[in-house]
Amino acid sequence: MTELDVPSGVPAKVATPLPGDPRLARLSLNQRTIPRWSVGEAVEGCLAAGIPAIGLWREQIAEFGLDRACKKVRASGLRVSSLCRGGFLTGLEGDYTRAMADNMQAIDEAAALGARCLVMVVGGLPEGSRDLPGARRRVEDRIAELAVYAGQNGVQLAVEPMHPLFCADRGVVSTLRQALELAERFPVEQVGVVVDTFHLWWDPDLTELVGRAAGRIASYQVCDWITPFPADALLSRGMMGDGHIDFHSFSSLMQEAGYAGDIEVEIFNAEVWAAEPSSTLATLARRYVENILPS
Amino acid sequence: MTELDVPSGVPAKVATPLPGDPRLARLSLNQRTIPRWSVGEAVEGCLAAGIPAIGLWREQIAEFGLDRACKKVRASGLRVSSLCRGGFLTGLEGDYTRAMADNMQAIDEAAALGARCLVMVVGGLPEGSRDLPGARRRVEDRIAELAVYAGQNGVQLAVEPMHPLFCADRGVVSTLRQALELAERFPVEQVGVVVDTFHLWWDPDLTELVGRAAGRIASYQVCDWITPFPADALLSRGMMGDGHIDFHSFSSLMQEAGYAGDIEVEIFNAEVWAAEPSSTLATLARRYVENILPS
Repeated sequence: MTELDVPSGVPAKVATPLPGDPRLARLSLNQRTIPRWSVGEAVEGCLAAGIPAIGLWREQIAEFGLDRACKKVRASGLRVSSLCRGGFLTGLEGDYTRAMADNMQAIDEAAALGARCLVMVVGGLPEGSRDLPGARRRVEDRIAELAVYAGQNGVQLAVEPMHPLFCADRGVVSTLRQALELAERFPVEQVGVVVDTFHLWWDPDLTELVGRAAGRIASYQVCDWITPFPADALLSRGMMGDGHIDFHSFSSLMQEAGYAGDIEVEIFNAEVWAAEPSSTLATLARRYVENILPS
Repeated sequence: MTELDVPSGVPAKVATPLPGDPRLARLSLNQRTIPRWSVGEAVEGCLAAGIPAIGLWREQIAEFGLDRACKKVRASGLRVSSLCRGGFLTGLEGDYTRAMADNMQAIDEAAALGARCLVMVVGGLPEGSRDLPGARRRVEDRIAELAVYAGQNGVQLAVEPMHPLFCADRGVVSTLRQALELAERFPVEQVGVVVDTFHLWWDPDLTELVGRAAGRIASYQVCDWITPFPADALLSRGMMGDGHIDFHSFSSLMQEAGYAGDIEVEIFNAEVWAAEPSSTLATLARRYVENILPS
């Protein structure tokens, strides 16, 4: 193969898989990987590229219209591997009231879309607060408040442990251990966890924790950790194969834990976002086969 | 108080402490907080500001001359709270040979300077490698090779767990638990750990781990975690009080663990570096009293 990827310049090892290729059976496109596309365009793009599942975002659903999105997705036959995102549960007083109402609405949307789970980005420290244990306690209390409502609506809350890099401003649940300790208090159909390679690859206890997560894994999200670390921390994720994560080992752990669900590619990266979306999908499908697919 | 700090604009709560103030008795200046100063200037600056200890860096020592630095420091009466840094132990073959020779030399320098410890930044993944468990095993093996030589020379190796942000490129020891599991294999006079607020503040097991570290803490380093996260990840540290870390809780844990040694302020930050060094020292001494000093 001599084809080269933009932006990384890594040479291709396999041909871009065609629609219908059985190796793509578990691949899912997280919509934020191609933010220029509407929900409708993303659905069409997945069909054209042979990607059988999609992870949707509430902001794009709101722009497109919930009913219209539900019809579009249902007609496409795509699975909805996740809805992103609920959470931001650490606020005080008025922020808390608004967050709970918003999360109930997110659960309703996930149910309407038939999403496999609602990804919960739990939130960082409230403005001016340095009380990290307090913020973590509020997350536990508020997940408890939402869990029953989620279960009643057939939606699994998926608690996402976030890289410690985001502890102050995005998510105070920093490790898979923390996420499991929280999720295990509830029936599995109410609360599961997200396993995201970017957030968890560094954890020295990864093998033990992925094993412990067996049966609780609501979502498996993948992208790479790249260096030098990009200037915008929120756009620091790389295309699989461009960075430092050993995906074959990671996927083997997931397989040993019995996870057989969708594998969602979620890349926030200025260069990936600048590329033509259908090119990104072709690269992504190939990189998935090269790097992620359990061997 | 109406005095304002540059760059943060936070109003002062106490007057800048004067030389001889007993509240500064445990304060140490890490030399990289004021990189424009030579070793000689940094020593003079500490004396002028009433800071009784200094953390030195090998690069600045080399520029100044080791013998000259030893004489300057000894004549000043300052304690040398640490020498930064040894480590980078994860390399393969030729890199490994060079690293071991360099670390032996670093131990010799720490002994000559009378440094309390040699800070070990253990190193990231070698170029092109994704074998994180392998890199971590090499660190263990190589610390074992260096520990006896360090002990014979009266130098304690101080293994620094680094924020998971730096796992790929600076340090594969990511948690205090990992650092302790490594250090506890050796006599305490050979291998201890660094507790750095920036690297560890997010850890949900911090209370347990600082307790476990009692008697093993070779160095306590402080700076803040600031948001938005700066564009250069290596310069992302903030002046204490400008960010999100609850230093009073952190210092209380250290006190409960019986740590009574120096508290070293180490700030890599472009705005702090742009300020006039003696102003930085005045701010730093005040912020130390306001934020760090155990109550």
